[in-house]
Amino acid sequence: MAAALVANGDVVAGVKAPAPATGRVASVYSEVQASRIDHALPLPSVLRNPFKIVDGPPSSAAGNPGEIAKLFPNLFGQPSAVVVPSESDSNESPQKLKIGVVLSGGQAPGGHNVISGIFDYLQERVKGSTMYGFRGGPAGIMKCKYVELTPEFIYPYRNQGGFDMICSGRDKIETPEQFKQAEETAVKLDLDGLVVIGGDDSNTNACLLAENFRGKNLKTRVIGCPKTIDGDLKSKEVPTSFGFDTACKIYAEMIGNVMIDARSTGKYYHFVRLMGRAASHITLECALQTHPNITIIGEEASSIVKVTWCKLALDYCLEGKKEKCETLVSPPGVRVALKKLTLKNVTDYIVDIISKRAELGYNYGVILIPEGLIDFIPEVQQLIAELNEILAHEVVDEDGLWKRKLTDQSLELFEFLPQAIQEQLMLERDPHGNVQVAKIETEKMLIQMVETELEKRKQAGAYKGEFKGQSHFFGYEGRCGLPTNFDSTYCYALGYAAGALLHSGKTGLISSVGNLAAPVEEWTVGGTALTSLMDVERRHGKFKPVIKKAMVELEGAPFKKFESLRDEWALKNRYISPGPIQFVGPSSNAVNHTLLLELGAQV
Amino acid sequence: MAAALVANGDVVAGVKAPAPATGRVASVYSEVQASRIDHALPLPSVLRNPFKIVDGPPSSAAGNPGEIAKLFPNLFGQPSAVVVPSESDSNESPQKLKIGVVLSGGQAPGGHNVISGIFDYLQERVKGSTMYGFRGGPAGIMKCKYVELTPEFIYPYRNQGGFDMICSGRDKIETPEQFKQAEETAVKLDLDGLVVIGGDDSNTNACLLAENFRGKNLKTRVIGCPKTIDGDLKSKEVPTSFGFDTACKIYAEMIGNVMIDARSTGKYYHFVRLMGRAASHITLECALQTHPNITIIGEEASSIVKVTWCKLALDYCLEGKKEKCETLVSPPGVRVALKKLTLKNVTDYIVDIISKRAELGYNYGVILIPEGLIDFIPEVQQLIAELNEILAHEVVDEDGLWKRKLTDQSLELFEFLPQAIQEQLMLERDPHGNVQVAKIETEKMLIQMVETELEKRKQAGAYKGEFKGQSHFFGYEGRCGLPTNFDSTYCYALGYAAGALLHSGKTGLISSVGNLAAPVEEWTVGGTALTSLMDVERRHGKFKPVIKKAMVELEGAPFKKFESLRDEWALKNRYISPGPIQFVGPSSNAVNHTLLLELGAQV
Repeated sequence: MAAALVANGDVVAGVKAPAPATGRVASVYSEVQASRIDHALPLPSVLRNPFKIVDGPPSSAAGNPGEIAKLFPNLFGQPSAVVVPSESDSNESPQKLKIGVVLSGGQAPGGHNVISGIFDYLQERVKGSTMYGFRGGPAGIMKCKYVELTPEFIYPYRNQGGFDMICSGRDKIETPEQFKQAEETAVKLDLDGLVVIGGDDSNTNACLLAENFRGKNLKTRVIGCPKTIDGDLKSKEVPTSFGFDTACKIYAEMIGNVMIDARSTGKYYHFVRLMGRAASHITLECALQTHPNITIIGEEASSIVKVTWCKLALDYCLEGKKEKCETLVSPPGVRVALKKLTLKNVTDYIVDIISKRAELGYNYGVILIPEGLIDFIPEVQQLIAELNEILAHEVVDEDGLWKRKLTDQSLELFEFLPQAIQEQLMLERDPHGNVQVAKIETEKMLIQMVETELEKRKQAGAYKGEFKGQSHFFGYEGRCGLPTNFDSTYCYALGYAAGALLHSGKTGLISSVGNLAAPVEEWTVGGTALTSLMDVERRHGKFKPVIKKAMVELEGAPFKKFESLRDEWALKNRYISPGPIQFVGPSSNAVNHTLLLELGAQV
Repeated sequence: MAAALVANGDVVAGVKAPAPATGRVASVYSEVQASRIDHALPLPSVLRNPFKIVDGPPSSAAGNPGEIAKLFPNLFGQPSAVVVPSESDSNESPQKLKIGVVLSGGQAPGGHNVISGIFDYLQERVKGSTMYGFRGGPAGIMKCKYVELTPEFIYPYRNQGGFDMICSGRDKIETPEQFKQAEETAVKLDLDGLVVIGGDDSNTNACLLAENFRGKNLKTRVIGCPKTIDGDLKSKEVPTSFGFDTACKIYAEMIGNVMIDARSTGKYYHFVRLMGRAASHITLECALQTHPNITIIGEEASSIVKVTWCKLALDYCLEGKKEKCETLVSPPGVRVALKKLTLKNVTDYIVDIISKRAELGYNYGVILIPEGLIDFIPEVQQLIAELNEILAHEVVDEDGLWKRKLTDQSLELFEFLPQAIQEQLMLERDPHGNVQVAKIETEKMLIQMVETELEKRKQAGAYKGEFKGQSHFFGYEGRCGLPTNFDSTYCYALGYAAGALLHSGKTGLISSVGNLAAPVEEWTVGGTALTSLMDVERRHGKFKPVIKKAMVELEGAPFKKFESLRDEWALKNRYISPGPIQFVGPSSNAVNHTLLLELGAQV
């Protein structure tokens, strides 16, 4: 391994800063890291040969096309772009390009490969071009803080995890002043193009930038790339976001290990909370890979309630309380009932399965919980809103008089919560004084609630098992792992395609690589109009464009498959331990179940 | 993959029970699990060819040989056994053997391979032999609960993690009645030998069983095998315990990922607590593999104090307080000072480095903490002892009057602790009413204490950084992973050797495989007298034999290497991300640093 010390020659507003000590030193790489650097990446065959870019039909929007058209007068309706084979490279132009790239938001394995893909496109097809990496996310664009990317600079990051080549950030380019700063940078660096690697928000931002540059007649074009381990940025043309594959496989390795441990000791229930704030894709994918006994899917919350509600209506009916039953069954009643997922429902669902398992002699198991569970439970949302209000204005007295300000329902819930969670709700507050929902350790909360409920059932003679809960949270461990072969290849193609799209003069598109269940040579390549993914939300009386997060579809193939098997997994033990990610040999080219199922493949 | 449904034909006291549903079903294995089943295991060449077993010189004990001789009149002093090449197999006897095996204590990757090794020895060298697996640990011996091991039964567990083939347990064979039960089982099954796979306690127990059987003139011999992920069962002839290699590599994968995450975001300090209750080998090994900024080694606790104490003495001296200085320097003073590692020392040590890093512009980092840290801090031990006493007899009043029963020092410490930890100390108690030390989340405690101290320094203008702590605990995730190539091969050799030792009539030995830094062919094989590893402890007025846990040696090569590099790791970022364990290709045959350094190899 060459001891290639990376010279992180930072440039801030044109002034070269001394190289910081954070750059990667390939000489201290582990053997596996080092072996990955030179891992050869296949390209889809359409990108390996001469190609041209053709337009598809005009596009619309995911919702409210009228409003989107108003917000994006220059970009709305533009067609998707498709890369197709050609006699000669139609893009081949003598002109060199100046391209910037930025990483935006949380880490996802493969980001470095998107950058390598863009870079290699320029090296191979637009010789003499220049590429800049904006440092620390969108703030790097606004402050014109960047580094010039060279082959030596990029080399040690090839196929490596993390975002540390140029780092990321969570700033947004939102105000007129900030757009002005971005324009200044684009002009100053004479940028032909900018690639924004990010999630739903960042790609919305990319599109606003594209619209703005076009409106101001700047030559700078903007292309987005779909990044997020959460897997919730996807559409028909963008089959998956990068990083999801690697992160899920890392979590699944750990879950599989814990399963074998559970079976070997026979005495623990492991409650595993998994990262993924809004959607439950990660939890669902990990379930498909490992077959846990219980999996809570946030999006399904309402159907757990459906059952509860249906039973209740049935009870009223059987008791002859026809009026009450009808109230429940009538449309507004249904709506109210459907909204009423409660922590008690979730606890009961878990406790029912634990009790049944105890009867079969199993006092152990593995339970997966999505990080975002609490966001799906209206009563908790309500309690938090009330607490935020009260704690902003009231003194919290020791005698608990402040609690009188809570509504009856919220007070009941608050008293139902384990003491440690009550304290977390009271103490852990962000600088704005709000409860930090992401910090609530749902897995520990559920353990305590399950424990209490099982104790009750034991007293009543309905449960005779032994229960010991162990909590786990897997999150940060998966965001910066070495990308799988799939993510490495997928990201490289996304980057290479972004280069091609910019080269052909496209803007406001998201790089799209499809047909991912087929061998890499057959992957399709193109760009999708970012406006076609958008809808609007009303915030502070104004319409804001948003790319809606893709939630777990209860009618989609991944959930259907899970649904058809979970009863078997609950009571029989069908654990699968995926083992550590392999880069060579068995399973090294495997693709995650969610993607394959969504593409109609058999898993 | 053959859909070999495992028929777990349990036998309880001679009655065949119906097959439980817990057995492994190879047809639902992941691709990696399946690929491991048929992974070919090399044997040391001495075991591949005809061999004989020769005796070494007589042995003594690790301490108090007189007492050990009294406790083991039949076994004390017996020589080690060495397997050496021979013209023909001296062990070859027409007699078939009946051998039992038991897994004892916590899981460690490779246990299934020890069993496969014994089994294959019998299949290849003592055809027609029978092997029994006792279920659920030593209790299986006492209750005569076992399963007959067959090629089909063993097959799906080859090279697989976990202990679920026959499961484990933490019971001990201690009372005269329990020894009687074990004898009955040995007689009933007509056992020629028993292999006990376990840690320090289990191997002590194995030796007591061997002594007892020999004393009663039973033909049943007993051989131990060194198991524990903690790595604290080792001696000159037993270079490492199995499972340590795999567990450390799994933890190091996660730590490496978190490091890249820390560097990418630039805003978190990750506090990682690592399993390993008594000794800090796991933490030290993970540090050598990943180069964290701060690593607390429990065994070194006193030297952190040495510095604190030395500084204090120096201060007194410089201030002209010669008397105070001399009191500190005089031998009893030194002793007292050395004993006084405090949580405050540890906090200050961490805070000092965080402050220096902030000056360099780094507001992130990774800190490793051994699970057993609290056991190394006398003041915490004292507080816990007092709490156990008080809470057993006093009512805990809300006004805190009960605290008056604490000594001044303990009260001061209690008030110094973060509130959440105070509550954990008060609420989390085991069935005997004692504080559950293992449940104390040291990593969270340290985060809060570091936060408080940094806030103080900030007020005083001595710290200008930003601090955000993230906590992690890696434990259960590593106990049942797929064993590395090293652990797979090492365990198979340990088992094969145990078979050979029993076959040649040995008892009271621990299977010993050495020269582990060399290629497998050159590994040495033999058995070490368990009594030679023993010392005595006085408990309830009686001498009890114990195999002392091997702690981290501050003069040993692994610690020395760590010590020589940690200052560089603290301020410069020398992170290494080992990546996931590979079974093929780069690093797949790597051996852990601790073992290599202890064997004198350069790492």
